[in-house]
Amino acid sequence: MIDQEALVRDVSPAMSLETCETPALVLDLGKVDRNIARLRAHLAKLGVDFRPHVKTSKSLDVARRLFPAGSGPITVSTLAEAEYFASGGFTDITYAVGLGLDKIERARRLVDEGVRLSVLIDTVEQAQALATAARDGGAMPAVLIEIDCDGHRGGLLPDDRTLVVIADILRQGGVPFEGVLTHAGESYNARGGAGLPEAAEGERAAAVAAAELLRAAGHGVAVVSVGSTPTAHFARDLTGVTEVRAGVFTFFDLVMHGIGVCDADDIAVSVLATVIGHRPEKGWILTDSGWMAMSRDRGTQRHPVDQGYGLVCDIDGTPFTDVIVEDASQEHGILKVRPGSQGVLPDLPIGSRVRILPNHACATCAQHETYNVVDGQGREITARWPRMRGW
Amino acid sequence: MIDQEALVRDVSPAMSLETCETPALVLDLGKVDRNIARLRAHLAKLGVDFRPHVKTSKSLDVARRLFPAGSGPITVSTLAEAEYFASGGFTDITYAVGLGLDKIERARRLVDEGVRLSVLIDTVEQAQALATAARDGGAMPAVLIEIDCDGHRGGLLPDDRTLVVIADILRQGGVPFEGVLTHAGESYNARGGAGLPEAAEGERAAAVAAAELLRAAGHGVAVVSVGSTPTAHFARDLTGVTEVRAGVFTFFDLVMHGIGVCDADDIAVSVLATVIGHRPEKGWILTDSGWMAMSRDRGTQRHPVDQGYGLVCDIDGTPFTDVIVEDASQEHGILKVRPGSQGVLPDLPIGSRVRILPNHACATCAQHETYNVVDGQGREITARWPRMRGW
Repeated sequence: MIDQEALVRDVSPAMSLETCETPALVLDLGKVDRNIARLRAHLAKLGVDFRPHVKTSKSLDVARRLFPAGSGPITVSTLAEAEYFASGGFTDITYAVGLGLDKIERARRLVDEGVRLSVLIDTVEQAQALATAARDGGAMPAVLIEIDCDGHRGGLLPDDRTLVVIADILRQGGVPFEGVLTHAGESYNARGGAGLPEAAEGERAAAVAAAELLRAAGHGVAVVSVGSTPTAHFARDLTGVTEVRAGVFTFFDLVMHGIGVCDADDIAVSVLATVIGHRPEKGWILTDSGWMAMSRDRGTQRHPVDQGYGLVCDIDGTPFTDVIVEDASQEHGILKVRPGSQGVLPDLPIGSRVRILPNHACATCAQHETYNVVDGQGREITARWPRMRGW
Repeated sequence: MIDQEALVRDVSPAMSLETCETPALVLDLGKVDRNIARLRAHLAKLGVDFRPHVKTSKSLDVARRLFPAGSGPITVSTLAEAEYFASGGFTDITYAVGLGLDKIERARRLVDEGVRLSVLIDTVEQAQALATAARDGGAMPAVLIEIDCDGHRGGLLPDDRTLVVIADILRQGGVPFEGVLTHAGESYNARGGAGLPEAAEGERAAAVAAAELLRAAGHGVAVVSVGSTPTAHFARDLTGVTEVRAGVFTFFDLVMHGIGVCDADDIAVSVLATVIGHRPEKGWILTDSGWMAMSRDRGTQRHPVDQGYGLVCDIDGTPFTDVIVEDASQEHGILKVRPGSQGVLPDLPIGSRVRILPNHACATCAQHETYNVVDGQGREITARWPRMRGW
């Protein structure tokens, strides 16, 4: 059995992008810190709190770049993430996926252990189940109600009176009701920044309207939470909002680049690959990094610029003009010049190494156990950081 | 930190599909054994050896269903797989991805440890690097040359004289040359079985022709290896072939169903999900199983029947008519009746559980740490089997 802990500890001084095993997930820490600073500065100007989503990194080490000394606040997408980050000292956590009825007791255990946990619901059934659970007098998480601001997924419409019914059930059951939360998932369909200020305003307006409806019915609404990476960056006014969530901004990716939120140079994660073959008659270079290393995510498939399974860079992270991972099998990547481009395939002999920028950082990172950390332009791996996974 | 080993050991007698945490990967062992028996019987009739690919399961426990007492032969897609399966007693291994030059020493260590390892190459550079490595007189893996039978990926054409150049370099360098290997990757583009007997014959003919060319040049060719799950099942005659490889047949999936290799009822893996919400005005049921649990694989996207992110079944594995995971975010699945279908959305209250058949077993299983094993129609989880990952 492979000892993953031993792998993570094994950072010899000589380890570098030239010598490590490939495929390998590479994290450029300078870019991470720059991306964090950019969004923090923007949100500070808007006067709102920041509750970053850690589902992209799933890493205590990365979360500590967001909160060098602190305990959050953070957002998570699974209870396993909540438990992992709590074990590392993060005690202010919002679990921003609709709460399964069978997950109530597991959530309560975290509260028992001292975590300030908020959970998300949007149905009467969930409220009743929480009220029933609370009858034993034990610890309960705080509850946020999910608001649908753009028809993307779950949530109640901001004018739906079910909001009040749910808040009433919680109050009668002695379950702490905390506020409302929404996520402008449709903002991922933007291109080149178009429509994003409007999406941010729609997200804000929906959350604030729902909060006002609840307040008018006599419920205190302490938290008005909005966020997605695109809307967080394009919001111009967040009056009435108390906190913003965003996740993929930490690393960015080609989808965010296509949406118009970042430059390719802002993308902090890449997959290091080694050339294992050539098919010059087809215009192909073969690497050892297929979809197992990149993920199956084809998030730019319907963008004006389809990046295939990723944009190919040299070992130092500089993109080749229009060279993409055009196709992938489990452990093979096929590099090719983008269809219609005048670019030429670079000279990459067998054994050469390239770095591939991913479509979707959350999906690509999830294929790996470990971040190989580099600083700026150097090839030295200065640390290897583990990731968590599972539910 | 979550103790994955503890999770795997923790199979209480009461654990069942009704009570375990979701999302969860479920493995129906009766179907696994049936799928194995079917292909074994077919290949026995054709008189060839079987070297199953274990990249789908990445599990010693599953591999032991293929070889209850034995040590292989198996095929792997990474050296980490080779090391993992070797640690579990599998000592006859073919690593069927083009060998990176920097992986030669790692492959030699396995040979040193007693593994009968074959590696795959298709360039003069790889042959020269192996010959150079062999100068120290240490253990060397056997070498197969990759043949391109259908333009799908790497390999040399069967009439390419480079085959002989490579075999000559190996002979002069004292590196054991073993034979040829090909993979009919294009067979995945078949639909409903059409063209598969012909693809199988093309795969056989290419491998045998390459072997004959090498033999005519004075090289012994002990191994003539072919295989993909579609061609393995549709081959009618394998004269000249010594062994067949296939991987996904162990579990099958919706892509194999669409290609025409299996029935939906043969699919042995599914993802157990819990209903967390409803949007009746949109015809949606929301679950806690998004793409992190299903993978981003959309392998049926261009099939006549697009299965979305998976086909929805009840908790016992019986499909609902035309209900699919129509869209997915990281931890949300959206169930919907297939566009154009007259089917109706089943009554699935909050807290209900469903099982989702995946597009691509290799990709979906890779999102999970553990197989939750069930036998036949029962809901009891009889074992939890770990998976390996990484490179």
